[in-house]
Amino acid sequence: MPDRASRPRWALAVHGGAGTLRRQDMTPEAEQAYRDMLGRALDAGEAVLDAGGSALDAVEAAVVVFEDSPLFNCGRGAVFTADGRHELDAAIMDGRTCAAGAVAGVRRVRNPIRLARMVMERSPHVLVVGEGAESFAQAQGIDLVDPGYFSTARRWEQLVATRRDLGEEVPARSEDAPTDPGLGAACPDDRTIGTVGAVALDASGHLAAATSTGGLTNKRPGRVGDSPIIGAGTYADDATCAVSGTGTGELFIRAVVAHDVAARMRYGGQTLAEAARAVVMDTLPRLGGAGSGGLIAVDARGGLVMPFNSEGMYRGCAVAGGARTVGIFRD
Amino acid sequence: MPDRASRPRWALAVHGGAGTLRRQDMTPEAEQAYRDMLGRALDAGEAVLDAGGSALDAVEAAVVVFEDSPLFNCGRGAVFTADGRHELDAAIMDGRTCAAGAVAGVRRVRNPIRLARMVMERSPHVLVVGEGAESFAQAQGIDLVDPGYFSTARRWEQLVATRRDLGEEVPARSEDAPTDPGLGAACPDDRTIGTVGAVALDASGHLAAATSTGGLTNKRPGRVGDSPIIGAGTYADDATCAVSGTGTGELFIRAVVAHDVAARMRYGGQTLAEAARAVVMDTLPRLGGAGSGGLIAVDARGGLVMPFNSEGMYRGCAVAGGARTVGIFRD
Repeated sequence: MPDRASRPRWALAVHGGAGTLRRQDMTPEAEQAYRDMLGRALDAGEAVLDAGGSALDAVEAAVVVFEDSPLFNCGRGAVFTADGRHELDAAIMDGRTCAAGAVAGVRRVRNPIRLARMVMERSPHVLVVGEGAESFAQAQGIDLVDPGYFSTARRWEQLVATRRDLGEEVPARSEDAPTDPGLGAACPDDRTIGTVGAVALDASGHLAAATSTGGLTNKRPGRVGDSPIIGAGTYADDATCAVSGTGTGELFIRAVVAHDVAARMRYGGQTLAEAARAVVMDTLPRLGGAGSGGLIAVDARGGLVMPFNSEGMYRGCAVAGGARTVGIFRD
Repeated sequence: MPDRASRPRWALAVHGGAGTLRRQDMTPEAEQAYRDMLGRALDAGEAVLDAGGSALDAVEAAVVVFEDSPLFNCGRGAVFTADGRHELDAAIMDGRTCAAGAVAGVRRVRNPIRLARMVMERSPHVLVVGEGAESFAQAQGIDLVDPGYFSTARRWEQLVATRRDLGEEVPARSEDAPTDPGLGAACPDDRTIGTVGAVALDASGHLAAATSTGGLTNKRPGRVGDSPIIGAGTYADDATCAVSGTGTGELFIRAVVAHDVAARMRYGGQTLAEAARAVVMDTLPRLGGAGSGGLIAVDARGGLVMPFNSEGMYRGCAVAGGARTVGIFRD
């Protein structure tokens, strides 16, 4: 049990993806737009935590902000699959009980993170995919949207460019496909960036983690990355920490990244910082993942870390009564 | 590095599911049929390992035997979903490189474990689900079958009984549905039992794990359990162990069972037996999973364990130059 006197009343971190993010590739306007949205996601989580709400509610609220923004690769603004569609994945985990819910391959659910939470709370299952997840969503009365809602011009251009680079046929542009998010070329080339997540410690000492993603531009339909995989991209246990990852999903699955951070603390006596650093800076590069991504994590004392081995990671964190940090690049 | 002189040339374990398996519920004929198939799966893996083949080839060969048998809940003989279909999941992992491949929700692939291996070796992905997995299967030229191939009378009766118990409508019996496997009521009531798996150590000191399942009788379409989740139902790393689990999949996902065994060894200095026992006998029951299942595991010294917290587990193991063990009940 951490010493309650020495820990902040609450702690929160969010990420909006990691990858080849360099200052010179980004206009000041785009940078500001991303910083603003990171701040708004923190605002949403803080409002819950400040009011004495649960870490679970806080991480969900923060992720919903990202899902509703066209800037990030989740919900609205998600990348396109190889066949020109969107397949969204999300997971949430409650450190208090180690309960978890996740969905993969959903196409019409406005906020996949909300559906993940419904899987956790209203079904006996942890992971539900594809059409089965859609019909569960429908039965639950969750907000459904036309698939075109998720489409943005920038992501469509990324699909076209990726397929041309690979010499692959460009799929027919569906009528409802690209709505211009108003940023166009001002954004960096982030075809593989933009998974979002949040982790939090609440006033009751409980932890939670949430992650949401559109996956990889030009991914094979049906491909599932680490985000909805408990232990890989998302994990929370009050006994150790809450983690949300972002990066090359396949490597994160093979390294069981999020659970490995927790296991190093639990069985190896490592601090959160040591554990997170070892996984991101040693394990992932050793598996072939130099520049593969990063993670955010919080422990039961309110310690926050946001390590990444890529050139940048959209990130932000805050603690009760402390300063707020928002960052994008390495320095 | 283990002392090569002190370890067997190879080691192999297989399982065919865990749950409420009691001697009094099983006819001697059914028991013999299961023992025979466990023996044949061991034969298949042993043939590979004896010839100096890889652990990866051995676990695949053993699992294919189970998938081709109507006795187990995987491949032919898989349980029915709530809508009267089959959705098959499988995963394989190579301890040498921590490469992994998995599929979920496939309906026409005769041997899902072979498709999981193709995902590992012929795609950049780890997990591919649903129709995307089917079209990858088609592109790879793998053996496809009519969905009715998987259907058996016994599993159909289990679906009908389960849905009647729950007061739910029984789905229309598709024309091709139940082929009688020739065992009928001689088998125990194993509606939730029958996931199969194999783990092996080969003569080169490499480990591998494989798992295949039809999931839960009456499962919601799209529900994915622990079997295809790397770290939950399947994990292999030469540095620690190879694990294949079977039981209440949701608990295995939440406890990240297979990776937790490895992490206890790696970071906590536990032996394979200590680690496996702690996860199966302490962690799972604490999460609410008394009677939730078991696992098989092998370490780099050829140590084999097969703990379960349920009344029985179909299981078998063998080491080069040693005796073969096949068991079903607790004692």
